[in-house]
Amino acid sequence: MVKGLLSQRSSCSSHGRECATPVLAAQRRNNSTAPKIAVEFDQSTGVAVMRLQSPPVNSLSLDFITELCISVEKLEMDKSCRGLILTSSQPKVFSAGLDITEMYGKSPEHYGEFWRAVQEMWLKIYGSSMVTIAAINGSSPAGGCLMSMTCDYRIMADNPRYSIGLNETQLGIVAPFWFKDTMTNTVGHRTTEVALQLGLLYNPSEALKIGLVDQVVPEDQVLATATQTMTKWLAIPDHARALTKSMMRKPTIDKLTSNREADIQHFVNFITKDSIQKSLGIYMAMLKKRRARGQRAHVLSVTRVWGSS
Amino acid sequence: MVKGLLSQRSSCSSHGRECATPVLAAQRRNNSTAPKIAVEFDQSTGVAVMRLQSPPVNSLSLDFITELCISVEKLEMDKSCRGLILTSSQPKVFSAGLDITEMYGKSPEHYGEFWRAVQEMWLKIYGSSMVTIAAINGSSPAGGCLMSMTCDYRIMADNPRYSIGLNETQLGIVAPFWFKDTMTNTVGHRTTEVALQLGLLYNPSEALKIGLVDQVVPEDQVLATATQTMTKWLAIPDHARALTKSMMRKPTIDKLTSNREADIQHFVNFITKDSIQKSLGIYMAMLKKRRARGQRAHVLSVTRVWGSS
Amino acid sequence: MVKGLLSQRSSCSSHGRECATPVLAAQRRNNSTAPKIAVEFDQSTGVAVMRLQSPPVNSLSLDFITELCISVEKLEMDKSCRGLILTSSQPKVFSAGLDITEMYGKSPEHYGEFWRAVQEMWLKIYGSSMVTIAAINGSSPAGGCLMSMTCDYRIMADNPRYSIGLNETQLGIVAPFWFKDTMTNTVGHRTTEVALQLGLLYNPSEALKIGLVDQVVPEDQVLATATQTMTKWLAIPDHARALTKSMMRKPTIDKLTSNREADIQHFVNFITKDSIQKSLGIYMAMLKKRRARGQRAHVLSVTRVWGSS
Repeated sequence: MVKGLLSQRSSCSSHGRECATPVLAAQRRNNSTAPKIAVEFDQSTGVAVMRLQSPPVNSLSLDFITELCISVEKLEMDKSCRGLILTSSQPKVFSAGLDITEMYGKSPEHYGEFWRAVQEMWLKIYGSSMVTIAAINGSSPAGGCLMSMTCDYRIMADNPRYSIGLNETQLGIVAPFWFKDTMTNTVGHRTTEVALQLGLLYNPSEALKIGLVDQVVPEDQVLATATQTMTKWLAIPDHARALTKSMMRKPTIDKLTSNREADIQHFVNFITKDSIQKSLGIYMAMLKKRRARGQRAHVLSVTRVWGSS
Repeated sequence: MVKGLLSQRSSCSSHGRECATPVLAAQRRNNSTAPKIAVEFDQSTGVAVMRLQSPPVNSLSLDFITELCISVEKLEMDKSCRGLILTSSQPKVFSAGLDITEMYGKSPEHYGEFWRAVQEMWLKIYGSSMVTIAAINGSSPAGGCLMSMTCDYRIMADNPRYSIGLNETQLGIVAPFWFKDTMTNTVGHRTTEVALQLGLLYNPSEALKIGLVDQVVPEDQVLATATQTMTKWLAIPDHARALTKSMMRKPTIDKLTSNREADIQHFVNFITKDSIQKSLGIYMAMLKKRRARGQRAHVLSVTRVWGSS
Repeated sequence: MVKGLLSQRSSCSSHGRECATPVLAAQRRNNSTAPKIAVEFDQSTGVAVMRLQSPPVNSLSLDFITELCISVEKLEMDKSCRGLILTSSQPKVFSAGLDITEMYGKSPEHYGEFWRAVQEMWLKIYGSSMVTIAAINGSSPAGGCLMSMTCDYRIMADNPRYSIGLNETQLGIVAPFWFKDTMTNTVGHRTTEVALQLGLLYNPSEALKIGLVDQVVPEDQVLATATQTMTKWLAIPDHARALTKSMMRKPTIDKLTSNREADIQHFVNFITKDSIQKSLGIYMAMLKKRRARGQRAHVLSVTRVWGSS
């Protein structure tokens, strides 16, 4: 089923050294079929850098997530690739999170397909045997925060205007249990309880204090720090490290894999409710209005709609 | 069964705007049938303030707990009530914890009824869909600490003579597994392991440091801070917040609900032991003596007996 | 089976006041049948001090672990013994961890017997009803760290050259699930995830910061501080404290007891792999070379081999 999901779209891969550089990608920005992910794999170090380049804010649309899953899977199967750095090519944002337009005004089948892809993304990265580092060079709310938390290590730019967190309740929606489990594994039960209930977004220094990110560095040093950190992680024998990682994460992963269909059904039932659709509709309208007035988006849930409207 | 427990005593409710103000309650202090709980519900904000007013130290007697459960249940069923602030009308004490006289020299049936009420109090507050804030304006040992921990947020007065903690082992008794689970969810496994074994009571700044309370403010600002904090929590859509809260707490709640009768039996077996009854008897005698000598109680387990003897 | 393990070697006990003092033990250092553990039990306080004295670095060999288990079991059965302080008689090292020579070039049967003893050591100390305090007066990597974590409280010497941690991945091996569970219970999920993957060794102040030890004091005050701390713990009624401790640790202990044979089989399968044996062989050769060149060992995994080669 997973394979099915991925193979449907396997034509749009950008993995390999021939893939688009960020500059090329930027030039192609208006081309909707352009790769949304640019992967640079350095055979000499065994490290791949994956740049998210879906303008303007790396919203996690179905297409984007599918491309991301394919790219990660290819690296995973390439035994010469030992480490993966995730970062953004877009200014000011790492990822704005799940694309709200995938959750509004669509068919139940679409919602189901979308949710399965979101699960798949989490399973692929959280369960990766590679060392995974998030180089968070911009805001990272909701699904962007989830993607960061699935990595082994998080380095964030020290710009106080950037924020990170699972802010779902602020939109009237609820983070599913495996978002919650991932956050609990990262910052503990009590911090998660408050953060999830209030939909808190943290600036970098706050995120560092609660352990939501591991390091905060000047913006122009995020990627270099990620590379240095990767070297340290790769000094450990892969086999022992990957077995240890699996031991830590398997119970959490098993919980989703054994409840996957129920979780999809739960999401579809929730998102198709009139009240939820209405809330999302009002929210999207408000954002369009704000955008028309030229207001700066402060939370990325705002910019999320920019990516799709 | 729960309903049964509550309906037996449903005549002594003080819920609603017609209920006693703290001043009136204080005047009635010597009347044993006076309400032990004063609830002020503000329809305009959707927030109820519940004042514990069982002189002198808000000991959690069977009557008191029953009245508390009824009051919480009424608010829970009133959909216009969205938030609940718990605080004390008694000087220097939030609650002295479980009333030791309910656990000494009584019948097994009485112990069972008492313990079921303690469980019920925890289930009602820990599982409440309302936002619950503890405005801890005095010491809060043992059951008082448990009651605080069942809330969503804890604000404590900065008076260094006040203390909070689960100090059961100091009396030779053992906090049950759901007290332990609640504390673990609040401050983590390791801190709980030490705190419970040593029966530690923390002053406000220590409690803040380990995360047992969320905020420490000057004594005269405890209630105002609780009100401001409530406003922040109520800015989140109720439905999403309450579902998130349930997701965080349900596993812990389920553990008690599915072991409720066994937990009661366990308590009755433990408390009826000769050695435990003897310990409690010695302890109570010592406290009466101290009281006769006019010594100031430092730990609330001490003041616990004052409320009943 | 456990009894069987222990009774085979019950002749080498050193428990009781007649046992070797550290000074005598030092004089006997070159006698391979000399007790590896010296126990001083003070009837007046109910506290036993157990000194690890297996030169040069208290490597956890099968003989050493067996003697340790017997000593702990004897104290456990002596109801007048309420507290146990574990410390080292060897300079600069608390314990260098599992003896690597027990895991290299031996038969599967030997590996199985060795691993059962390691499990037994953990079960005995982690589940002890005594108060257990580790007076960590030297480095404490791998199995040394595990032994420390099984105690109720950890006090470490402030010497920055000492380190503590589960550094198994650095040798290409993997800490088993119950090492991981013990560490998670001590420092939480996230810190454990990073520490175990990278095989991190912490200096005392780092260890204090993450909660891997509870207190750091000058080297000459480690034992005195342990004794004072013990007095505080013994002020709590034994029965209530031990029941509370069991409530906190039982789920973790049950996980191993119900998977004990599978865990042994898993260890034997892993350690007999050609690749693992080859890694350990290379590692041991490197250490011998280093030692020949007179280099100072910085990590205790290094000194581990000194103890046996």
